[in-house]
Amino acid sequence: MTGRDEATLTDLTLLGNQNTKYLFEYSPDVLEAIDNLHMNRDYFVKFNCPEFTSLCPQTGQPDFATMYISFIPDKKLVESKALKLYLFSFRNHGDFHEDCVNIIMNDLIELLDPRYIEVWGKFTPRGGLSIDPYCNYGQPGTKFEQMADHRLMNHDLYPEKIDNR
Amino acid sequence: MTGRDEATLTDLTLLGNQNTKYLFEYSPDVLEAIDNLHMNRDYFVKFNCPEFTSLCPQTGQPDFATMYISFIPDKKLVESKALKLYLFSFRNHGDFHEDCVNIIMNDLIELLDPRYIEVWGKFTPRGGLSIDPYCNYGQPGTKFEQMADHRLMNHDLYPEKIDNR
Amino acid sequence: MTGRDEATLTDLTLLGNQNTKYLFEYSPDVLEAIDNLHMNRDYFVKFNCPEFTSLCPQTGQPDFATMYISFIPDKKLVESKALKLYLFSFRNHGDFHEDCVNIIMNDLIELLDPRYIEVWGKFTPRGGLSIDPYCNYGQPGTKFEQMADHRLMNHDLYPEKIDNR
Amino acid sequence: MTGRDEATLTDLTLLGNQNTKYLFEYSPDVLEAIDNLHMNRDYFVKFNCPEFTSLCPQTGQPDFATMYISFIPDKKLVESKALKLYLFSFRNHGDFHEDCVNIIMNDLIELLDPRYIEVWGKFTPRGGLSIDPYCNYGQPGTKFEQMADHRLMNHDLYPEKIDNR
Amino acid sequence: MTGRDEATLTDLTLLGNQNTKYLFEYSPDVLEAIDNLHMNRDYFVKFNCPEFTSLCPQTGQPDFATMYISFIPDKKLVESKALKLYLFSFRNHGDFHEDCVNIIMNDLIELLDPRYIEVWGKFTPRGGLSIDPYCNYGQPGTKFEQMADHRLMNHDLYPEKIDNR
Amino acid sequence: MTGRDEATLTDLTLLGNQNTKYLFEYSPDVLEAIDNLHMNRDYFVKFNCPEFTSLCPQTGQPDFATMYISFIPDKKLVESKALKLYLFSFRNHGDFHEDCVNIIMNDLIELLDPRYIEVWGKFTPRGGLSIDPYCNYGQPGTKFEQMADHRLMNHDLYPEKIDNR
Amino acid sequence: MTGRDEATLTDLTLLGNQNTKYLFEYSPDVLEAIDNLHMNRDYFVKFNCPEFTSLCPQTGQPDFATMYISFIPDKKLVESKALKLYLFSFRNHGDFHEDCVNIIMNDLIELLDPRYIEVWGKFTPRGGLSIDPYCNYGQPGTKFEQMADHRLMNHDLYPEKIDNR
Amino acid sequence: MTGRDEATLTDLTLLGNQNTKYLFEYSPDVLEAIDNLHMNRDYFVKFNCPEFTSLCPQTGQPDFATMYISFIPDKKLVESKALKLYLFSFRNHGDFHEDCVNIIMNDLIELLDPRYIEVWGKFTPRGGLSIDPYCNYGQPGTKFEQMADHRLMNHDLYPEKIDNR
Amino acid sequence: MTGRDEATLTDLTLLGNQNTKYLFEYSPDVLEAIDNLHMNRDYFVKFNCPEFTSLCPQTGQPDFATMYISFIPDKKLVESKALKLYLFSFRNHGDFHEDCVNIIMNDLIELLDPRYIEVWGKFTPRGGLSIDPYCNYGQPGTKFEQMADHRLMNHDLYPEKIDNR
Amino acid sequence: MTGRDEATLTDLTLLGNQNTKYLFEYSPDVLEAIDNLHMNRDYFVKFNCPEFTSLCPQTGQPDFATMYISFIPDKKLVESKALKLYLFSFRNHGDFHEDCVNIIMNDLIELLDPRYIEVWGKFTPRGGLSIDPYCNYGQPGTKFEQMADHRLMNHDLYPEKIDNR
Ligand SMILES: [Ca+2]
Ligand SMILES: [Ca+2]
Ligand SMILES: [Ca+2]
Ligand SMILES: [Ca+2]
Ligand SMILES: [Ca+2]
Ligand SMILES: [Ca+2]
Ligand SMILES: [Ca+2]
Ligand SMILES: [Ca+2]
Ligand SMILES: [Ca+2]
Ligand SMILES: [Ca+2]
Ligand SMILES: [Ca+2]
Ligand SMILES: [Ca+2]
Ligand SMILES: [Ca+2]
Ligand SMILES: [Ca+2]
Ligand SMILES: [Ca+2]
Ligand SMILES: [Ca+2]
Repeated sequence: MTGRDEATLTDLTLLGNQNTKYLFEYSPDVLEAIDNLHMNRDYFVKFNCPEFTSLCPQTGQPDFATMYISFIPDKKLVESKALKLYLFSFRNHGDFHEDCVNIIMNDLIELLDPRYIEVWGKFTPRGGLSIDPYCNYGQPGTKFEQMADHRLMNHDLYPEKIDNR
Repeated sequence: MTGRDEATLTDLTLLGNQNTKYLFEYSPDVLEAIDNLHMNRDYFVKFNCPEFTSLCPQTGQPDFATMYISFIPDKKLVESKALKLYLFSFRNHGDFHEDCVNIIMNDLIELLDPRYIEVWGKFTPRGGLSIDPYCNYGQPGTKFEQMADHRLMNHDLYPEKIDNR
Repeated sequence: MTGRDEATLTDLTLLGNQNTKYLFEYSPDVLEAIDNLHMNRDYFVKFNCPEFTSLCPQTGQPDFATMYISFIPDKKLVESKALKLYLFSFRNHGDFHEDCVNIIMNDLIELLDPRYIEVWGKFTPRGGLSIDPYCNYGQPGTKFEQMADHRLMNHDLYPEKIDNR
Repeated sequence: MTGRDEATLTDLTLLGNQNTKYLFEYSPDVLEAIDNLHMNRDYFVKFNCPEFTSLCPQTGQPDFATMYISFIPDKKLVESKALKLYLFSFRNHGDFHEDCVNIIMNDLIELLDPRYIEVWGKFTPRGGLSIDPYCNYGQPGTKFEQMADHRLMNHDLYPEKIDNR
Repeated sequence: MTGRDEATLTDLTLLGNQNTKYLFEYSPDVLEAIDNLHMNRDYFVKFNCPEFTSLCPQTGQPDFATMYISFIPDKKLVESKALKLYLFSFRNHGDFHEDCVNIIMNDLIELLDPRYIEVWGKFTPRGGLSIDPYCNYGQPGTKFEQMADHRLMNHDLYPEKIDNR
Repeated sequence: MTGRDEATLTDLTLLGNQNTKYLFEYSPDVLEAIDNLHMNRDYFVKFNCPEFTSLCPQTGQPDFATMYISFIPDKKLVESKALKLYLFSFRNHGDFHEDCVNIIMNDLIELLDPRYIEVWGKFTPRGGLSIDPYCNYGQPGTKFEQMADHRLMNHDLYPEKIDNR
Repeated sequence: MTGRDEATLTDLTLLGNQNTKYLFEYSPDVLEAIDNLHMNRDYFVKFNCPEFTSLCPQTGQPDFATMYISFIPDKKLVESKALKLYLFSFRNHGDFHEDCVNIIMNDLIELLDPRYIEVWGKFTPRGGLSIDPYCNYGQPGTKFEQMADHRLMNHDLYPEKIDNR
Repeated sequence: MTGRDEATLTDLTLLGNQNTKYLFEYSPDVLEAIDNLHMNRDYFVKFNCPEFTSLCPQTGQPDFATMYISFIPDKKLVESKALKLYLFSFRNHGDFHEDCVNIIMNDLIELLDPRYIEVWGKFTPRGGLSIDPYCNYGQPGTKFEQMADHRLMNHDLYPEKIDNR
Repeated sequence: MTGRDEATLTDLTLLGNQNTKYLFEYSPDVLEAIDNLHMNRDYFVKFNCPEFTSLCPQTGQPDFATMYISFIPDKKLVESKALKLYLFSFRNHGDFHEDCVNIIMNDLIELLDPRYIEVWGKFTPRGGLSIDPYCNYGQPGTKFEQMADHRLMNHDLYPEKIDNR
Repeated sequence: MTGRDEATLTDLTLLGNQNTKYLFEYSPDVLEAIDNLHMNRDYFVKFNCPEFTSLCPQTGQPDFATMYISFIPDKKLVESKALKLYLFSFRNHGDFHEDCVNIIMNDLIELLDPRYIEVWGKFTPRGGLSIDPYCNYGQPGTKFEQMADHRLMNHDLYPEKIDNR
């Protein structure tokens, strides 16, 4: 089988590993990175994550969301199985929706130091209302800082139709 | 359960409170705010509100709409249960569609002093016509004032398909 | 203008009447009927009613639903403006979803004595769950009694996709 | 060009005729039929007619509907341009929705004496309610009479989602 | 009932009036305006109008369209029942699609002197082709003149999928 | 507020109660019932439950599903807040998809002794495959036993389109 | 490569053949069959054919349709490339929609002698109307003859929504 | 019938003319123009053309596409029936997809000398791949030349979902 | 973690096993079964499989399909990871679409001896045509044999809309 | 048959050639180009490729994606059958999603030296997460280099809704 050089894969502890342990308390340390082989190029990687669940910090009730995480890598990509485990670790964590998306973005900035990143959470309703927080970030002092501002200025001009059904 | 510090929650009178009273006359005082823990960052919070109903000021007939409320917080977030009660308080209030969206935005500006905010109401038809008013606002003298202008200039270039069914 | 004989319209008090009064307490007496001109034939009439709202009998919180009302007339049709006013009269009425659909059907049976009738309410969610009650009825001792049984046996084999968004 | 024998087309006065006159008063006489070349077989022909408009007999306000007309021919097919003109002739005709579908079906039975026929009108809402009448018919004393009964018994078990938008 | 001051409604001759007369010849005089209570703010009002019908000026055949009318008010809003009657008045009027959207916009400019306005008509096909004209306008010598140019430059980069079914 | 007699609500311990405790180990005892006020009639109640999550019994990985629960009540209805808590109690429970739907149905039969019940779980994919188990039940020795058989024979003739996106 | 025995493929003149000749006059002789390897079993094969075009026999104007062809094979399957060429051969053939579907079914009965077959053509509109003929057939004297009758009786109880866009 | 002045229609040879001749060899001369009555204004006209078919120049196999043609007129509009005949004239013409869209645009520039024009063809797949060419043009030396560049730079940032079904 | 008894899982060689070997030649032996814990009940299990690919036996070109596999278990369920590997093993296998669905069903009958089973493959088009074979089976001499016949008689009365895009 | 000059086709070895060999190891040499006849114009060509499959470099498991490839040609177009074979050649190639899209774009830059190009891969999920990488490129030192930057800055502001079903 041709393809990606195995040398770029040797530090991975999770992908293809049978003894996966699922953590249900917030665990940013589970995140792992792999080398970006295309550093000469600015390009996007998006993760679609429709299986996010956390708890309401006030009532303890479970919340559910789809997370859309999109970034332009610098030296590192996030390994997808590690990202899955990290997101699963919010399962028994209590935080408001607005906090969850900011925390996830902070942890990925810490791990990857990406050129650009954004996180959009789309939660299911409680009491007839649903909440969709969105945050983004560009490396300070680079064009990606302006990019973050530009994308926030143009964020969600076309809200999707929501009827709670 | 890890997560948001309870100290940020102590002023909430509604969330998790059993004795919720539903007001059906316009009641801006029911609104409550919570601290924004991410003031260092410009980010968006959107509320999808498909259960809005008010009355026609001329005929008294009930009107129905989905409200999309989106803002960039400054010091405060709106507490979602309070927002629900506030929106429910239009139930016996008579006003034109164009007035409702402006009033809601005015009240949230008063409560939150947000960096940016917009409100889009999408009403069901009467006599074959439906009306969708949209207003927005940015803090005067900041880049968000330009942002409001920019978003209005680019508002709704792709009207959703409507066939009244 | 050719068409329906005005003689069949003379008992209508609401259609085309300016001084419509909107009642927000349960008011079955507002219902009015018109003559069915095609009694020689069994045929269906369906009303799509996406603007139904009532209150939770325990908490007082507003509930929202789309009601689908479908019937085979005998001597009478329901006048549509009267039906609208009747449905609007649940606005401040407190009852469980299961009760609302049964009450609506009972009132229309009382008004119309239809050959067959069914009512399906599809409510928005509370706490992540939504409830869709369905009831039906056929005139006892006629083939429509068997029809009601047949349709219940075959009800909703394909539940619509629900994701609360 | 091979294909349908021109002899079967000689009675057509409308198809391919430039001097089409559009009648806007109910005109059943405009209907024309052509020979069914496949009388040995029971088969369906459906017309989708999304451009139907008539007037409310009480208020004079225009109504709009999509008509679905489906039949099993016996000796005759309806010529499609004639059907279009016939449906356009309701443009200034005042009748309730329930009456329109019955009248259309009566006129096509008169023209075609079909083995089976059904007409379903789906109208746009007035005052938040929309009405969808459905009628059908099978030649008396044939299996198609039972077919009409069977299809009425099983009519519309899955009402389409309606939100008036 | 709280809400819009009745003094702002006293000039309305149509809304809530029983004796509505439906005109089916082009009648721009039927249009009426109401005061804009939020003149300090630039905001959008959109009308969705899926029940537009006119005639082909060459053949007399009925045409059907959905009209999307969107504007930023200055001193005046258009009253919705009057707008409905105005649009219904094209019912027996013959004009090409391209002319209809320009005429509607001209009449609303005359009535409202809006800061900005645009009209988009989406017609049903004839002979396999459908036509969707779009025009817009901004008050000369204001930023809204540039806005009109900007929106035309960016008009409809994503044509909706059309398959004539 | 008119409506359901409070006497039918006195045994409810959960609805409107502030001190809700969320259990995350399988807890069938949390289920509560309320009286069915329409026992004279066979009718359906459907619960749409898009927030179901459990664990894989072999790997411990979280699973996600939408549950559709539909029944014809006899003496009892299930209280919706209790049902929510019951479904949330699978959060840390490990079982195969096929087992979960059978267990849920067994517990509701135990609680309600319904005339008829069915449960359909639609899970998200693992390894490119998703699994949708469906079970049903009718009271033995009644027509509902035949109903269960009839509905199984006709189950899901039109599988929904699945592309894992 | 494992799989279908080449001996069952030796009579194919078209599949994998470079010198394909596209015929644009009705050419039933181009049809080819292959052996059905599963004659012990009744099963369905459906062809979705969205690229059908023919001519109007009266005006010469091109018509467009999607053809859905579905059958239960007996000894033979139709080879798909041959079926494509056959359908393409209607390109310059003039016939009414009702005739086309009957002719296609007749030719496939001649070729395959299938246990059961049905053909449904869904055409694009002319003058605002579209036509969808449907025919079917079962081998006389077998259960498939009853099957054809049964499927005709239950044909298209849920007409797809058509708006000509 | 009020509306467009007949004087602007006198040069039309096709619209309303019975003896339409359908040409199936590429025939740019069939195109006809009508006067633009709104030359004082920049506005868009879009033609949706889902019935385009041509031939592969290498294999002779029929190709199918939907063409979206959009332009800002200068002195002339294209007459829609003539445009239909022109597009039908590609029926037996062999050219690659990329060539067809460029040829159509060239011919319309020749006919109309429009301020701006664009053509987007969306073809059905061959061998699992589909091809969608897009070209545009603005009058040299005007702002429309920059407009063409601007729209190309922003073309199709959101490719529609394609799964070949 | 409560839930399925580990004793029912001890024979599984694949689920949770790191050293999964992906076979790309047809390999029915990779299939594994697990115990059905609900043998007292007839219930359905459906697998949605949108990642099926095989080769054309004549040309070697890859084919792609979504497989829908649905069965009523007797003593055994199919283990989902094993089913995934089995379906992946068609990757370099050459067979016609009609053969693939029959082979898959035969192998699952051999493995599970199910009470009832059906397999529906929906393939992507080649040359503008797509093919969707469907087969089913019920245990001979049981009511499930009649069930198979009943479901075939009622198969796919509503073909999904296909436009190859 | 009129159309593209055969002289521009003489170098094609694949299109219309019967003896196509399908390579399942990464084979960039199979790519072929044809002349761009419209070099005077900047225009887009998009390929929709929903049948892409490769292998995971770590586990060997098959991956599936839809590839959207869009470019502005300079001297060359890519021949579509060659592109198909090239994409099929990833069938047994192991690489991460992020690598595949970059490799495809590199190979097409090598072949075509296009003015601009972009590649967007949308993969099916593994473990509940799906990944969608996007890269682009403009000829250095031209306006297309800025175009690439502009399009990356504005990439995917509206992520499509993903629920893994
Ligand atoms: Ca809720
Ligand atoms: Ca929704
Ligand atoms: Ca309406
Ligand atoms: Ca709609
Ligand atoms: Ca939804
Ligand atoms: Ca309405
Ligand atoms: Ca709708
Ligand atoms: Ca369409
Ligand atoms: Ca999907
Ligand atoms: Ca449509
Ligand atoms: Ca294809
Ligand atoms: Ca598709
Ligand atoms: Ca193809
Ligand atoms: Ca499609
Ligand atoms: Ca997965
Ligand atoms: Ca989806």
